Amino acid sequence: MDSPDDAAVWQLDRENALVLTTDFFTPVVDDAYDYGAIAAANSLSDVYAMGGEPFLALNITAFPANLDISVQQAILRGAAEKAREAGVVIAGGHTIQDKEPKFGLVVLGRIRIHNLLTKRAAQPGDRLIITKPLGFGVTTTALKQEKADAEDVLEAVTWMKQLNRLSSQLALEFNLNAATDVTGYSLLGHGWEMAYASQVGMQIDHHKVPFLTHARKYAEAGCFPDGASNNRIHYGEHISFSNAIDEITQMQLFDPQTSGGLLLAVPEEIHTAFLKRARKLDQSAWEIGFVVPGNSIEVV
Amino acid sequence: MDSPDDAAVWQLDRENALVLTTDFFTPVVDDAYDYGAIAAANSLSDVYAMGGEPFLALNITAFPANLDISVQQAILRGAAEKAREAGVVIAGGHTIQDKEPKFGLVVLGRIRIHNLLTKRAAQPGDRLIITKPLGFGVTTTALKQEKADAEDVLEAVTWMKQLNRLSSQLALEFNLNAATDVTGYSLLGHGWEMAYASQVGMQIDHHKVPFLTHARKYAEAGCFPDGASNNRIHYGEHISFSNAIDEITQMQLFDPQTSGGLLLAVPEEIHTAFLKRARKLDQSAWEIGFVVPGNSIEVV
Repeated sequence: MDSPDDAAVWQLDRENALVLTTDFFTPVVDDAYDYGAIAAANSLSDVYAMGGEPFLALNITAFPANLDISVQQAILRGAAEKAREAGVVIAGGHTIQDKEPKFGLVVLGRIRIHNLLTKRAAQPGDRLIITKPLGFGVTTTALKQEKADAEDVLEAVTWMKQLNRLSSQLALEFNLNAATDVTGYSLLGHGWEMAYASQVGMQIDHHKVPFLTHARKYAEAGCFPDGASNNRIHYGEHISFSNAIDEITQMQLFDPQTSGGLLLAVPEEIHTAFLKRARKLDQSAWEIGFVVPGNSIEVV
Repeated sequence: MDSPDDAAVWQLDRENALVLTTDFFTPVVDDAYDYGAIAAANSLSDVYAMGGEPFLALNITAFPANLDISVQQAILRGAAEKAREAGVVIAGGHTIQDKEPKFGLVVLGRIRIHNLLTKRAAQPGDRLIITKPLGFGVTTTALKQEKADAEDVLEAVTWMKQLNRLSSQLALEFNLNAATDVTGYSLLGHGWEMAYASQVGMQIDHHKVPFLTHARKYAEAGCFPDGASNNRIHYGEHISFSNAIDEITQMQLFDPQTSGGLLLAVPEEIHTAFLKRARKLDQSAWEIGFVVPGNSIEVV
């Protein structure tokens, strides 16, 4: 096990292992189908972040008794179609009644052990690459507060529904060893988890970090979910910011993401080829910094 | 997949398959450690009911923010120690905050395909054997209503914590093919599911059905959980009762069970040897009826 919140890895033989993971949460968007699809993409991501290929899943379903049956079906359909896109079968699951709806998947994947991606393998000199922009936390919080523009929500939803499958396959194609997915602990939280596990430091250039088009607007309106402050409290002591970086930008880097992208550590000598290949495959990828010796993250 | 509420089976090769399942629920008893142990035994049972051997599990944890940390730890410890008894590793899991606590496990097991126990394989002439008494639903409901005697709760808890591992191993030793576990749908609901899947009928002798010592007292006091009426509404049309069987006894057979025993269909020619072997291993087992041609359950 890499850490309590990641997938569990069970070695089958010298070459093969199973990866088992589960994740579920309350709705992040209004549309039931999108909620199901995002929850599925998010659950599947735990397997992709380790270099695995998911193949079997179960629904984890907690719905209010009075939740319209068509809404329930739309959530399950969103998840099932996203799973199908990933080549995964959802075979049943467990359903309970609950006042507040929750949904997610249990996901079982297979992995070739020599392909295993972990948070422990980042090396000084590696370039840091992320595969989705940030800003999902502030945008979905603005939506809950009825302050979000529909097109901004659509932009966030489109990214959150995207599978991390192709970025995981790219990582394997380039024999990368170090990856994690950027979710509730934010870029800096998950970045720190990787740095700590690898016993290295990181330097991140905040100008290079990609954000949703109008994430800044919602950040300035104070639409941070509670998790952003918690992340800052929990991880802040390991992070330093250059003086020129304003408070809102700092908080944006602590913003919790749902179904965020992968954070990859790519050896310096192959990072150009990696970015070129990603472009060719239409897989977004942004270089945001590099790994250094040390024991903290410096944001410049 | 046998049915939506059972474990998912994934064939690995000609001889081997994986079994994946999850189950979680709100507390059924006051003691946190016992709650964790019962939830674990209940989740593991889905694998045992199919003839599998569980080996890996994840916690599914929804706790209120203000739930005392010592209570949280006791729940997790109860589950971890029960899992260890079963030879299972709990490797992380997913935790969310929730107003009402819920707990359970995701369980992954392995199975030899020729050992697979299903609900589809009961044959006319088979004897029906159950491995735990009934009465968990009325007793835990009486506890919630503060009407239960401590010793009656202890009796129920002791049974609910018991793994179905040995009864599953016994089923394999005797090459049985048909089994299910008796949980929320009650003896008659799960019995009917087996009868329907096997395209047979059943005759059950209510005098032979084992109950907790004082289950009748709580049944007479009306301590049925909501599920009992739902089970009767849902399955009642497939069940007939002899005139002499009173209303309360009928309802007791629809009483939902948490972490109930296995219901096994044992070929007539080996059932005596099976019961003898169970006695020798100190595994409780009661013969309660037999499988007949037909399409209903007759309770006599």
